Amino acid sequence: MKIIIVGSTGIIGKKVAEDLSKRHEVINASRTNADIKVNIESTSSIEAMYKKVGKFDAVISTTGEGYFGALKNATDAVFRKGINSKLMGQVNLVLIGQHHINQKGSFTLTTGILADDPVFNGSNLSLVNGGINSFVIAAAIELENNVRINAVSPGVVEDAPHYFPFFPGHIPVSMDNVVAAYIKSVEGFLTGKIIKVF
Amino acid sequence: MKIIIVGSTGIIGKKVAEDLSKRHEVINASRTNADIKVNIESTSSIEAMYKKVGKFDAVISTTGEGYFGALKNATDAVFRKGINSKLMGQVNLVLIGQHHINQKGSFTLTTGILADDPVFNGSNLSLVNGGINSFVIAAAIELENNVRINAVSPGVVEDAPHYFPFFPGHIPVSMDNVVAAYIKSVEGFLTGKIIKVF
Repeated sequence: MKIIIVGSTGIIGKKVAEDLSKRHEVINASRTNADIKVNIESTSSIEAMYKKVGKFDAVISTTGEGYFGALKNATDAVFRKGINSKLMGQVNLVLIGQHHINQKGSFTLTTGILADDPVFNGSNLSLVNGGINSFVIAAAIELENNVRINAVSPGVVEDAPHYFPFFPGHIPVSMDNVVAAYIKSVEGFLTGKIIKVF
Repeated sequence: MKIIIVGSTGIIGKKVAEDLSKRHEVINASRTNADIKVNIESTSSIEAMYKKVGKFDAVISTTGEGYFGALKNATDAVFRKGINSKLMGQVNLVLIGQHHINQKGSFTLTTGILADDPVFNGSNLSLVNGGINSFVIAAAIELENNVRINAVSPGVVEDAPHYFPFFPGHIPVSMDNVVAAYIKSVEGFLTGKIIKVF
């Protein structure tokens, strides 16, 4: 398969790319240091990426930012960070990508445990993750040509110890299990699933 | 209690207002035909509403629009309808309202069955409803002064038969049950709950 990994320089994206490149043609996409530069906050940048790549079989997104901070200081402006990046950035990879992807291709987006199990400071990322989870189950019933879509929803990952203080009592999940979830989505046949790794 | 109902002219809002006004001081807010005009897509309009009302005990939102149409025709631009209206409009009622609401006050937002059980054409509203559901569980752990927050998630309502063709096999829910969910949120003591009426 020809697989685009958007966010290939991230903690998770790097490991997913490493594993998939053993068996597939992987195209690394990121804001910097990748085969193709892409900024998911820009629909024209996403369009340009797909045009440059040509036909492909899968997109994996392991990218997107949001506001991590107290609700009492939150404003419309800071919430738009998560809306424009992790939420609409990933949604636009699908809305635009559906017109470029091969038959039987797949989209795999990334959400996270905060959709279901919130922490202090996480209200924007909870919103973003919950929004994508529901988008995925809805998009799955409409995508044509047997194209599939899933989300991987990891807990706090063992390789990111700098996050641990913000997730009291959360049990870090193994990177191997997180990578396996992306493999399940891409090489398996599921659609409309939120693959929880926690 | 002094209760602001945003969306008081809508199918659901009207019934909720009717019931609550038997026992409480209800302030109807809407884009037109209400005690106070408010456009939830504008943060300055929301600010102006809260300043005009002064202190209050509860906000119920039964409002917000989204894109209802095929995924294959969807673009960033049409998805922004739901983002700016039903999603960020309702979130901004909370982000701004938290600085105006009385101790032990409550916010009640409206989502819907599409967060969990999608229909064709509904991907934008699924996203919006799922986003708010997760926002609500996250905001509940941060709101100060014992302020509460819940969402009511109705199925297709018996009073809206024009929606039935878009919800094949869905069993319409009774308006009495939907109204009861809002009462449970406002007069009860729950917080961080998605009150499903389906």
